[in-house]
Amino acid sequence: MDRFDVSKAGILRELLHDAPLVRLAGAHDALGAKLVEATGFEGVWASSFELSAANCLPDLSLLSMTQYLQAAVAMNDAVSIPVVADCDSGFGGPLNVAHLVRQYERRGVAAVCIEDQVFPKVNSLAAVEHHLLPAEEFAHRIAVGKRVQQTKEFVVIARTEALVAGESVDEALHRARTYVDAGADAVLVHSNAASPAPVLEFAERWQSVVPIVIVPTTYPTLTAAEIQRAGIRMVIYANHGLRAAVRAMADALREMWEAGTSMPIEDRIASVDEIFGLEGMSSWLEIQE
Amino acid sequence: MDRFDVSKAGILRELLHDAPLVRLAGAHDALGAKLVEATGFEGVWASSFELSAANCLPDLSLLSMTQYLQAAVAMNDAVSIPVVADCDSGFGGPLNVAHLVRQYERRGVAAVCIEDQVFPKVNSLAAVEHHLLPAEEFAHRIAVGKRVQQTKEFVVIARTEALVAGESVDEALHRARTYVDAGADAVLVHSNAASPAPVLEFAERWQSVVPIVIVPTTYPTLTAAEIQRAGIRMVIYANHGLRAAVRAMADALREMWEAGTSMPIEDRIASVDEIFGLEGMSSWLEIQE
Amino acid sequence: MDRFDVSKAGILRELLHDAPLVRLAGAHDALGAKLVEATGFEGVWASSFELSAANCLPDLSLLSMTQYLQAAVAMNDAVSIPVVADCDSGFGGPLNVAHLVRQYERRGVAAVCIEDQVFPKVNSLAAVEHHLLPAEEFAHRIAVGKRVQQTKEFVVIARTEALVAGESVDEALHRARTYVDAGADAVLVHSNAASPAPVLEFAERWQSVVPIVIVPTTYPTLTAAEIQRAGIRMVIYANHGLRAAVRAMADALREMWEAGTSMPIEDRIASVDEIFGLEGMSSWLEIQE
Amino acid sequence: MDRFDVSKAGILRELLHDAPLVRLAGAHDALGAKLVEATGFEGVWASSFELSAANCLPDLSLLSMTQYLQAAVAMNDAVSIPVVADCDSGFGGPLNVAHLVRQYERRGVAAVCIEDQVFPKVNSLAAVEHHLLPAEEFAHRIAVGKRVQQTKEFVVIARTEALVAGESVDEALHRARTYVDAGADAVLVHSNAASPAPVLEFAERWQSVVPIVIVPTTYPTLTAAEIQRAGIRMVIYANHGLRAAVRAMADALREMWEAGTSMPIEDRIASVDEIFGLEGMSSWLEIQE
Repeated sequence: MDRFDVSKAGILRELLHDAPLVRLAGAHDALGAKLVEATGFEGVWASSFELSAANCLPDLSLLSMTQYLQAAVAMNDAVSIPVVADCDSGFGGPLNVAHLVRQYERRGVAAVCIEDQVFPKVNSLAAVEHHLLPAEEFAHRIAVGKRVQQTKEFVVIARTEALVAGESVDEALHRARTYVDAGADAVLVHSNAASPAPVLEFAERWQSVVPIVIVPTTYPTLTAAEIQRAGIRMVIYANHGLRAAVRAMADALREMWEAGTSMPIEDRIASVDEIFGLEGMSSWLEIQE
Repeated sequence: MDRFDVSKAGILRELLHDAPLVRLAGAHDALGAKLVEATGFEGVWASSFELSAANCLPDLSLLSMTQYLQAAVAMNDAVSIPVVADCDSGFGGPLNVAHLVRQYERRGVAAVCIEDQVFPKVNSLAAVEHHLLPAEEFAHRIAVGKRVQQTKEFVVIARTEALVAGESVDEALHRARTYVDAGADAVLVHSNAASPAPVLEFAERWQSVVPIVIVPTTYPTLTAAEIQRAGIRMVIYANHGLRAAVRAMADALREMWEAGTSMPIEDRIASVDEIFGLEGMSSWLEIQE
Repeated sequence: MDRFDVSKAGILRELLHDAPLVRLAGAHDALGAKLVEATGFEGVWASSFELSAANCLPDLSLLSMTQYLQAAVAMNDAVSIPVVADCDSGFGGPLNVAHLVRQYERRGVAAVCIEDQVFPKVNSLAAVEHHLLPAEEFAHRIAVGKRVQQTKEFVVIARTEALVAGESVDEALHRARTYVDAGADAVLVHSNAASPAPVLEFAERWQSVVPIVIVPTTYPTLTAAEIQRAGIRMVIYANHGLRAAVRAMADALREMWEAGTSMPIEDRIASVDEIFGLEGMSSWLEIQE
Repeated sequence: MDRFDVSKAGILRELLHDAPLVRLAGAHDALGAKLVEATGFEGVWASSFELSAANCLPDLSLLSMTQYLQAAVAMNDAVSIPVVADCDSGFGGPLNVAHLVRQYERRGVAAVCIEDQVFPKVNSLAAVEHHLLPAEEFAHRIAVGKRVQQTKEFVVIARTEALVAGESVDEALHRARTYVDAGADAVLVHSNAASPAPVLEFAERWQSVVPIVIVPTTYPTLTAAEIQRAGIRMVIYANHGLRAAVRAMADALREMWEAGTSMPIEDRIASVDEIFGLEGMSSWLEIQE
């Protein structure tokens, strides 16, 4: 965390309260984070889905906090916008939450997001049963996390998987309020429904200045303008970068394989010089002049 | 290195001598390696260019052997085809080469490739002067690497940057022969020319059973059929996956940003279920039944 | 895992069945493992207690599998005797156990030891309540781990904390048998009692060829000869190296601080040349001749 | 780097200029750093000698910056005193120095120390020839490092190995002055002589407010009082903790092996409760109350 990093958490906090809508996009490495920043997004979502996929392991709490933290730090080093780290269900119990808050805050990551699934978790979009912690138990973890935080700027987002687990909007609201009472700085209400209706109902009934966050992976028809009108303060496009990359890589590899040359794809892949530009090759070489 | 891994080096060795042409594609993480394997390529090139880019750092020997090794191991875990690790100029002097051979071999990576640029190196495609080690000095490093190898299968590829550094084909041939005399199992002759002429001349004048390897990034007009006819045994499409990914990610992010929704890109990105498929989500979930 | 590493698991398996008594000592880094080997011990215990302490974090499942695995691999690289990795309660649920078995086996570690405490665990010697998983649930984890194992040599040790949790020897025996039925290759019966009586009773009533392992930290009066006579096959001196090191470091630092020079301790610390000897400095320097 | 970490560099800077003498002791992990702090030392030396030894690898630039940085960060997390990181000869060329300064500063390490040996380096106490970079070339690296520093507090120490390489005090002074002109914040003059005479002569002839640092491993007769009187501002007891630990571990292991029990050593090793105390076990457990 450098001087700018302290203000990264501060910047995120300001955005959450003052911006019309804060938009984040997912990434899993420094290059992806750089592309997110270059596009104009206000923050980077250090995505558990993406990082698991990049490691060719399912998003089932198999990756460790060490791997998540290292990736988040690499992303944070590469950009000047805030990084929000997806920390699954907190990597264990209350003390694991304390440990993660200490580590992420100390490394300059602006925010962490922790969800109320039981550890080990299963990705929210996997077609299996999802198990929730009792609300009070998860609230306790949020409270423990907030208790060990060192700076006032650092942001802890509580994510409820109530809707994903088949619970009602009532239950989601109850849980979200419980987490806010425990100290959560924002609430992410996740849904795997094809319709935005549940999260819109949640937003309408929310009556609190604490910001709401959504991840509209399964209900992409909802636009940023509509999200903003609904009073939701942050939206995360959580995994589209990786999904675009996978399709493009698979296609490019297949065409090269079939053609026996890269000629067919040369005009639709980034040039080597573009990559050098993203890496800052020339500014690095200038340092030593 | 498990039982299968020992045979991975053995498989690579067989391919280099018996296959009409061995084709590799570059990757920098487990997912990329999986896509390379799924396409049909016979091996994965653990690319220094790609890994540097993924870390948003220029390919200037800034990443450490620890980072390269960790990435190569993650790729190797994800696939059943051999991984060839791009080890730049060997991370230092002769003892660093000994250290890397011991580490990569022990972790089950099938082969390492080391080049005769001075450490720290500059990416071969960067428009700067490239400095070569004296041939004898580099040959010594190859000899040291071969000396500490534990299994007979492990493959050490010597890469000459003579053409990249502006030297003649004569010099490239002289260097390659010196490295073979020192024990190299294969020779990668790199070129940044827009024409395949220099590497074709090299191949024509090479009179040895030791396999030649090329990386036709700057001369993509040369086809696999032509490469095979020239007697070259291995071709590496070193960085096209990452370059395809960057273009696709940049485009997808921009369209989402502008549209305020992911709707415009939904039909040309991989679905969440495709990602689960690549990760083996369902077979993982079945393990615990 | 190199060729020798496959046989490391095989060697451990042979020792467990044929040696009068197998003795291990704990370590947390490569140097400690080297000292354990140099002393004559037949194996290294990659100790969770030690590694947590070395990281100045309590042994409460705060360290991740990544950190444990990396340490075990570093130790395994440094010695030719088998390494047995203390894997706490398995880092999560059944799939975490599958993941750890795959990773440790693939990296050449001879054995893993998993205990039936709930994750996150608390060190067995901490004066707090210890929570056990239901026996069937833990047995399922053992079964899952054995199911994904690739080689027949790899060893999975099931550790029961029944006595630590205040349960009876009957319960410990019941649990141990359940774990053996699930596929465990050996059983570690842990006790924090000041008397060896409970583990001796356990051993007397055990009636199975599956080897028993003990860790006599709290009952050091029990000698190797007595352990062997009791039919116990493996004993682990789990953390004495680190505890000796801490006392010696604290004393040495204090004396240097007070004396304003290292003179008072020079004759009772290892010389620089001894350290060079342990590292193999001269054999490394010879490689490049 | 948290708020306190920024002041750690500031605190070190103040100490270097205002304290009668700043005393550091070497460590290689968090626990060692904690013991150094607990003894009263004003800072921790993240020792390359110690870390190499802990990895059972000779101090020959085999470990990577990744490994050094990770260890320094773990030490820094564990203490509230400044950590000074031994960065060998800078891990490569000028850009590697730029990279290390950026990384260490950003992670909250108070200072880095870089020496004028050629990369890869050989430990200063090894009985081999030591090769120096030309003074201007090393000065350029210092200048590059200072150029990329973000905060004014961060400290870059230039270490000259002139005396170790058999050069005169004149040459050492010339080099040190050149490095100060390039921006070094302090100068470490290293010597492997059995007598303190060379460094004392250096100190006497140094006529500059820029602090001098020494590492009296080979001339331990020189006391802190004498060092202070000579106008030297910082002294580093670089590796005595590890050397004390090695002797103690070797002795303890041997006695346990021979006695077949830990009884003979129980009264001279730290108790389990002492280890829990160092780790903060009870304060961690209280967090979740």
